[in-house]
Amino acid sequence: MVILGIDPGLATVGFGVLDKDARGGVRVLDYGVILTPKEERLPTRLAMLEQSLKKLIDKYKPDEVALEELFFNNNQKTAINVAQARGVILLTCVKECGRLYEYTPLQIKQAITGYGRADKNQIQQMVKTLLKLKSIPKPDDAADAVAVALTHVFTNRISGAFGIR
Amino acid sequence: MVILGIDPGLATVGFGVLDKDARGGVRVLDYGVILTPKEERLPTRLAMLEQSLKKLIDKYKPDEVALEELFFNNNQKTAINVAQARGVILLTCVKECGRLYEYTPLQIKQAITGYGRADKNQIQQMVKTLLKLKSIPKPDDAADAVAVALTHVFTNRISGAFGIR
Repeated sequence: MVILGIDPGLATVGFGVLDKDARGGVRVLDYGVILTPKEERLPTRLAMLEQSLKKLIDKYKPDEVALEELFFNNNQKTAINVAQARGVILLTCVKECGRLYEYTPLQIKQAITGYGRADKNQIQQMVKTLLKLKSIPKPDDAADAVAVALTHVFTNRISGAFGIR
Repeated sequence: MVILGIDPGLATVGFGVLDKDARGGVRVLDYGVILTPKEERLPTRLAMLEQSLKKLIDKYKPDEVALEELFFNNNQKTAINVAQARGVILLTCVKECGRLYEYTPLQIKQAITGYGRADKNQIQQMVKTLLKLKSIPKPDDAADAVAVALTHVFTNRISGAFGIR
Protein backbone atom coordinates (compact mmCIF):
# COMPACT_ATOMS: atom_id res chain seq x y z
CA MET A 1 0.00 0.00 0.00
CA VAL A 2 1.34 3.42 -0.99
CA ILE A 3 0.82 6.32 1.40
CA LEU A 4 1.40 9.94 0.41
CA GLY A 5 2.09 12.37 3.25
CA ILE A 6 1.64 16.09 2.59
CA ASP A 7 2.71 19.14 4.56
CA PRO A 8 0.47 21.82 2.99
CA GLY A 9 1.76 25.23 1.99
CA LEU A 10 1.75 27.76 -0.83
CA ALA A 11 5.44 28.54 -1.44
CA THR A 12 6.56 25.08 -0.29
CA VAL A 13 4.51 21.88 -0.13
CA GLY A 14 6.34 18.97 1.50
CA PHE A 15 5.64 15.43 0.32
CA GLY A 16 6.73 11.98 1.47
CA VAL A 17 5.82 8.68 -0.17
CA LEU A 18 5.88 5.47 1.88
CA ASP A 19 5.25 1.88 0.91
CA LYS A 20 3.74 -0.42 3.54
CA ASP A 21 4.01 -4.15 2.84
CA ALA A 22 1.57 -6.84 3.98
CA ARG A 23 3.63 -7.62 7.09
CA GLY A 24 3.66 -3.99 8.24
CA GLY A 25 7.13 -3.19 6.96
CA VAL A 26 7.52 0.41 5.82
CA ARG A 27 10.01 1.92 3.41
CA VAL A 28 10.47 5.35 1.87
CA LEU A 29 9.84 5.58 -1.86
CA ASP A 30 10.41 9.31 -2.24
CA TYR A 31 10.28 12.66 -0.51
CA GLY A 32 10.80 16.28 -1.45
CA VAL A 33 9.02 19.60 -1.94
CA ILE A 34 6.82 21.25 -4.54
CA LEU A 35 7.75 24.92 -4.88
CA THR A 36 5.72 27.77 -6.36
CA PRO A 37 7.47 31.03 -7.26
CA LYS A 38 6.61 34.07 -5.14
CA GLU A 39 6.76 36.35 -8.20
CA GLU A 40 3.73 34.68 -9.78
CA ARG A 41 0.16 35.69 -9.07
CA LEU A 42 -1.76 33.55 -6.58
CA PRO A 43 -4.11 31.87 -9.11
CA THR A 44 -1.11 30.92 -11.28
CA ARG A 45 0.73 29.49 -8.26
CA LEU A 46 -2.34 27.43 -7.36
CA ALA A 47 -2.51 26.06 -10.91
CA MET A 48 1.22 25.19 -10.81
CA LEU A 49 0.74 23.46 -7.46
CA GLU A 50 -2.15 21.43 -8.84
CA GLN A 51 -0.09 20.34 -11.87
CA SER A 52 2.92 19.28 -9.79
CA LEU A 53 0.76 17.38 -7.32
CA LYS A 54 -1.07 15.61 -10.14
CA LYS A 55 2.26 14.47 -11.59
CA LEU A 56 3.36 13.16 -8.20
CA ILE A 57 0.06 11.29 -7.72
CA ASP A 58 0.27 9.92 -11.23
CA LYS A 59 3.78 8.60 -10.56
CA TYR A 60 3.10 6.86 -7.24
CA LYS A 61 -0.68 6.27 -7.34
CA PRO A 62 -1.13 6.50 -3.53
CA ASP A 63 -3.88 4.41 -1.93
CA GLU A 64 -4.16 6.79 1.00
CA VAL A 65 -3.16 10.40 1.62
CA ALA A 66 -2.30 11.87 5.03
CA LEU A 67 -2.23 15.64 5.47
CA GLU A 68 -0.99 17.74 8.30
CA GLU A 69 -3.72 19.96 9.77
CA LEU A 70 -3.34 23.67 9.36
CA PHE A 71 -0.97 25.24 11.80
CA PHE A 72 -2.15 28.69 12.83
CA ASN A 73 0.40 31.30 13.59
CA ASN A 74 0.09 35.01 14.19
CA ASN A 75 0.60 35.87 10.56
CA GLN A 76 -2.95 35.82 9.24
CA LYS A 77 -1.87 36.49 5.65
CA THR A 78 0.36 33.41 5.68
CA ALA A 79 -2.40 31.31 7.28
CA ILE A 80 -4.90 32.40 4.63
CA ASN A 81 -2.46 31.71 1.77
CA VAL A 82 -1.71 28.26 3.13
CA ALA A 83 -5.44 27.62 3.50
CA GLN A 84 -6.09 28.65 -0.11
CA ALA A 85 -3.34 26.27 -1.25
CA ARG A 86 -4.69 23.55 1.03
CA GLY A 87 -8.09 23.82 -0.65
CA VAL A 88 -6.42 23.08 -3.98
CA ILE A 89 -4.45 20.18 -2.44
CA LEU A 90 -7.62 18.64 -0.96
CA LEU A 91 -9.48 19.06 -4.25
CA THR A 92 -6.67 17.45 -6.25
CA CYS A 93 -6.30 14.54 -3.83
CA VAL A 94 -10.01 13.77 -3.58
CA LYS A 95 -10.24 13.71 -7.38
CA GLU A 96 -7.07 11.74 -8.05
CA CYS A 97 -6.42 9.52 -5.02
CA GLY A 98 -7.98 7.17 -2.57
CA ARG A 99 -8.89 8.07 0.98
CA LEU A 100 -7.78 11.26 2.75
CA TYR A 101 -6.86 11.55 6.43
CA GLU A 102 -5.58 14.41 8.52
CA TYR A 103 -3.48 14.63 11.64
CA THR A 104 -2.78 17.44 14.08
CA PRO A 105 0.80 18.34 15.08
CA LEU A 106 0.05 16.79 18.49
CA GLN A 107 -1.04 13.50 16.93
CA ILE A 108 2.12 13.46 14.82
CA LYS A 109 4.37 14.08 17.83
CA GLN A 110 2.67 11.36 19.84
CA ALA A 111 2.65 8.83 17.02
CA ILE A 112 6.30 9.33 16.09
CA THR A 113 7.92 9.91 19.48
CA GLY A 114 5.25 8.88 22.01
CA TYR A 115 5.65 12.34 23.52
CA GLY A 116 3.29 15.27 22.79
CA ARG A 117 5.89 17.91 23.52
CA ALA A 118 8.62 16.55 21.26
CA ASP A 119 10.48 19.20 19.27
CA LYS A 120 11.14 19.20 15.54
CA ASN A 121 14.60 17.69 15.89
CA GLN A 122 13.35 14.79 18.02
CA ILE A 123 10.67 14.01 15.43
CA GLN A 124 13.17 14.17 12.59
CA GLN A 125 15.62 11.89 14.41
CA MET A 126 12.86 9.36 15.07
CA VAL A 127 11.72 9.48 11.42
CA LYS A 128 15.31 8.77 10.37
CA THR A 129 15.65 5.89 12.85
CA LEU A 130 12.23 4.31 12.23
CA LEU A 131 12.66 4.37 8.45
CA LYS A 132 16.36 3.41 8.59
CA LEU A 133 17.40 6.45 6.58
CA LYS A 134 21.04 7.51 6.23
CA SER A 135 20.14 11.12 7.01
CA ILE A 136 17.17 13.29 8.01
CA PRO A 137 15.03 14.20 4.97
CA LYS A 138 15.66 17.77 3.81
CA PRO A 139 14.20 20.37 3.72
CA ASP A 140 12.06 20.48 6.87
CA ASP A 141 8.81 20.47 4.89
CA ALA A 142 9.79 17.14 3.31
CA ALA A 143 10.65 15.69 6.74
CA ASP A 144 7.27 16.92 8.07
CA ALA A 145 5.48 15.21 5.18
CA VAL A 146 7.31 11.92 5.81
CA ALA A 147 6.37 12.24 9.49
CA VAL A 148 2.66 12.67 8.72
CA ALA A 149 2.73 9.68 6.35
CA LEU A 150 4.41 7.61 9.06
CA THR A 151 1.85 8.84 11.60
CA HIS A 152 -0.85 7.52 9.31
CA VAL A 153 0.83 4.11 9.17
CA PHE A 154 1.06 3.92 12.95
CA THR A 155 -2.40 5.33 13.69
CA ASN A 156 -4.06 3.07 11.19
CA ARG A 157 -2.35 0.08 12.73
CA ILE A 158 -3.39 0.90 16.27
CA SER A 159 -6.80 2.50 16.22
CA GLY A 160 -8.21 2.80 12.73
CA ALA A 161 -8.37 5.98 10.73
CA PHE A 162 -10.69 8.94 10.59
CA GLY A 163 -11.62 11.03 7.63
CA ILE A 164 -11.34 14.75 7.08
CA ARG A 165 -14.55 16.62 7.72
CA MET B 1 -18.28 41.51 -22.39
CA VAL B 2 -19.46 39.08 -19.72
CA ILE B 3 -18.34 39.67 -16.13
CA LEU B 4 -18.73 37.08 -13.40
CA GLY B 5 -18.77 38.38 -9.83
CA ILE B 6 -18.10 35.94 -7.01
CA ASP B 7 -18.60 36.22 -3.26
CA PRO B 8 -16.39 33.34 -2.04
CA GLY B 9 -17.50 30.89 0.63
CA LEU B 10 -17.68 27.20 1.45
CA ALA B 11 -21.35 26.60 2.39
CA THR B 12 -22.58 29.41 0.10
CA VAL B 13 -20.82 30.96 -2.89
CA GLY B 14 -22.64 33.96 -4.34
CA PHE B 15 -22.44 34.63 -8.06
CA GLY B 16 -23.64 37.42 -10.33
CA VAL B 17 -23.27 37.57 -14.10
CA LEU B 18 -23.31 40.94 -15.88
CA ASP B 19 -23.14 41.82 -19.55
CA LYS B 20 -21.47 45.11 -20.49
CA ASP B 21 -22.16 46.36 -24.00
CA ALA B 22 -19.86 48.47 -26.16
CA ARG B 23 -21.48 51.73 -25.02
CA GLY B 24 -21.01 50.93 -21.34
CA GLY B 25 -24.57 49.73 -20.72
CA VAL B 26 -24.79 47.00 -18.13
CA ARG B 27 -27.47 44.38 -17.59
CA VAL B 28 -27.84 41.39 -15.31
CA LEU B 29 -27.75 38.00 -17.00
CA ASP B 30 -28.05 35.87 -13.86
CA TYR B 31 -27.37 35.69 -10.16
CA GLY B 32 -27.69 33.13 -7.40
CA VAL B 33 -25.73 30.91 -5.05
CA ILE B 34 -23.80 27.65 -5.20
CA LEU B 35 -24.45 25.62 -2.06
CA THR B 36 -22.42 22.75 -0.62
CA PRO B 37 -24.00 20.51 2.04
CA LYS B 38 -22.57 20.77 5.56
CA GLU B 39 -22.98 17.01 6.07
CA GLU B 40 -20.38 16.20 3.42
CA ARG B 41 -16.66 16.00 4.10
CA LEU B 42 -14.59 19.05 3.17
CA PRO B 43 -12.79 17.50 0.14
CA THR B 44 -16.16 16.36 -1.28
CA ARG B 45 -17.64 19.84 -0.79
CA LEU B 46 -14.67 21.37 -2.59
CA ALA B 47 -15.14 18.97 -5.49
CA MET B 48 -18.88 19.81 -5.64
CA LEU B 49 -18.06 23.52 -5.60
CA GLU B 50 -15.60 23.08 -8.47
CA GLN B 51 -18.17 21.19 -10.55
CA SER B 52 -20.92 23.77 -10.01
CA LEU B 53 -18.60 26.65 -10.78
CA LYS B 54 -17.36 24.94 -13.95
CA LYS B 55 -20.96 24.54 -15.13
CA LEU B 56 -21.65 28.21 -14.47
CA ILE B 57 -18.50 29.27 -16.33
CA ASP B 58 -19.34 26.93 -19.18
CA LYS B 59 -22.81 28.46 -19.47
CA TYR B 60 -21.81 32.15 -19.49
CA LYS B 61 -18.15 32.03 -20.60
CA PRO B 62 -17.13 35.15 -18.65
CA ASP B 63 -14.37 37.34 -20.09
CA GLU B 64 -13.46 38.67 -16.66
CA VAL B 65 -14.02 37.50 -13.10
CA ALA B 66 -14.23 39.79 -10.07
CA LEU B 67 -13.89 38.31 -6.58
CA GLU B 68 -14.51 39.83 -3.21
CA GLU B 69 -11.41 39.75 -1.02
CA LEU B 70 -11.52 37.60 2.06
CA PHE B 71 -13.35 39.15 4.94
CA PHE B 72 -11.72 38.22 8.22
CA ASN B 73 -13.89 37.79 11.23
CA ASN B 74 -13.17 36.43 14.69
CA ASN B 75 -14.15 32.92 13.76
CA GLN B 76 -10.85 31.49 12.55
CA LYS B 77 -12.39 28.16 11.55
CA THR B 78 -14.86 29.91 9.26
CA ALA B 79 -12.10 32.09 7.80
CA ILE B 80 -9.94 29.05 7.09
CA ASN B 81 -12.81 27.13 5.47
CA VAL B 82 -13.66 30.10 3.28
CA ALA B 83 -9.97 30.40 2.34
CA GLN B 84 -9.79 26.72 1.38
CA ALA B 85 -12.88 27.15 -0.80
CA ARG B 86 -11.45 30.35 -2.25
CA GLY B 87 -8.31 28.47 -3.34
CA VAL B 88 -10.53 26.10 -5.33
CA ILE B 89 -12.48 29.04 -6.80
CA LEU B 90 -9.28 30.81 -7.89
CA LEU B 91 -7.90 27.59 -9.39
CA THR B 92 -11.09 26.90 -11.32
CA CYS B 93 -11.36 30.48 -12.60
CA VAL B 94 -7.73 30.75 -13.70
CA LYS B 95 -8.08 27.49 -15.64
CA GLU B 96 -11.49 28.14 -17.17
CA CYS B 97 -11.87 31.93 -17.54
CA GLY B 98 -10.18 35.07 -18.64
CA ARG B 99 -8.68 37.61 -16.26
CA LEU B 100 -9.21 37.65 -12.51
CA TYR B 101 -9.57 40.76 -10.35
CA GLU B 102 -10.25 41.24 -6.69
CA TYR B 103 -11.84 44.03 -4.66
CA THR B 104 -11.92 44.80 -0.98
CA PRO B 105 -15.21 45.53 0.83
CA LEU B 106 -14.11 49.19 1.01
CA GLN B 107 -13.57 49.37 -2.75
CA ILE B 108 -17.00 47.84 -3.31
CA LYS B 109 -18.70 50.32 -1.00
CA GLN B 110 -16.97 53.26 -2.63
CA ALA B 111 -17.59 52.08 -6.19
CA ILE B 112 -21.30 51.35 -5.66
CA THR B 113 -22.33 54.15 -3.28
CA GLY B 114 -19.42 56.59 -3.36
CA TYR B 115 -19.27 56.21 0.41
CA GLY B 116 -16.80 53.95 2.24
CA ARG B 117 -19.01 53.49 5.28
CA ALA B 118 -22.15 52.43 3.43
CA ASP B 119 -24.05 49.56 5.04
CA LYS B 120 -25.23 46.39 3.33
CA ASN B 121 -28.74 47.74 2.72
CA GLN B 122 -27.45 50.92 1.05
CA ILE B 123 -25.26 48.85 -1.28
CA GLN B 124 -28.13 46.52 -2.14
CA GLN B 125 -30.49 49.43 -2.86
CA MET B 126 -27.88 51.01 -5.15
CA VAL B 127 -27.30 47.70 -6.96
CA LYS B 128 -31.06 47.46 -7.55
CA THR B 129 -31.27 51.07 -8.78
CA LEU B 130 -28.15 51.02 -10.96
CA LEU B 131 -29.12 47.75 -12.65
CA LYS B 132 -32.83 48.67 -12.87
CA LEU B 133 -33.90 45.51 -11.03
CA LYS B 134 -37.41 44.98 -9.75
CA SER B 135 -36.10 43.78 -6.40
CA ILE B 136 -32.84 43.33 -4.50
CA PRO B 137 -31.08 40.07 -5.49
CA LYS B 138 -31.58 37.37 -2.87
CA PRO B 139 -29.93 35.86 -0.88
CA ASP B 140 -27.35 38.35 0.41
CA ASP B 141 -24.44 36.36 -1.06
CA ALA B 142 -25.92 36.73 -4.53
CA ALA B 143 -26.39 40.48 -3.99
CA ASP B 144 -22.77 40.74 -2.81
CA ALA B 145 -21.58 38.94 -5.93
CA VAL B 146 -23.58 41.27 -8.21
CA ALA B 147 -22.07 44.21 -6.29
CA VAL B 148 -18.49 43.02 -6.85
CA ALA B 149 -19.18 42.45 -10.57
CA LEU B 150 -20.61 45.97 -10.80
CA THR B 151 -17.62 47.34 -8.89
CA HIS B 152 -15.41 45.77 -11.54
CA VAL B 153 -17.39 47.48 -14.31
CA PHE B 154 -17.05 50.88 -12.62
CA THR B 155 -13.43 50.52 -11.55
CA ASN B 156 -12.37 49.33 -14.96
CA ARG B 157 -14.07 52.30 -16.55
CA ILE B 158 -12.49 54.86 -14.28
CA SER B 159 -9.01 53.74 -13.41
CA GLY B 160 -8.11 50.44 -15.04
CA ALA B 161 -7.97 47.13 -13.28
CA PHE B 162 -5.41 45.36 -11.18
CA GLY B 163 -4.72 41.68 -10.90
CA ILE B 164 -4.74 39.38 -7.92
CA ARG B 165 -1.31 38.71 -6.48
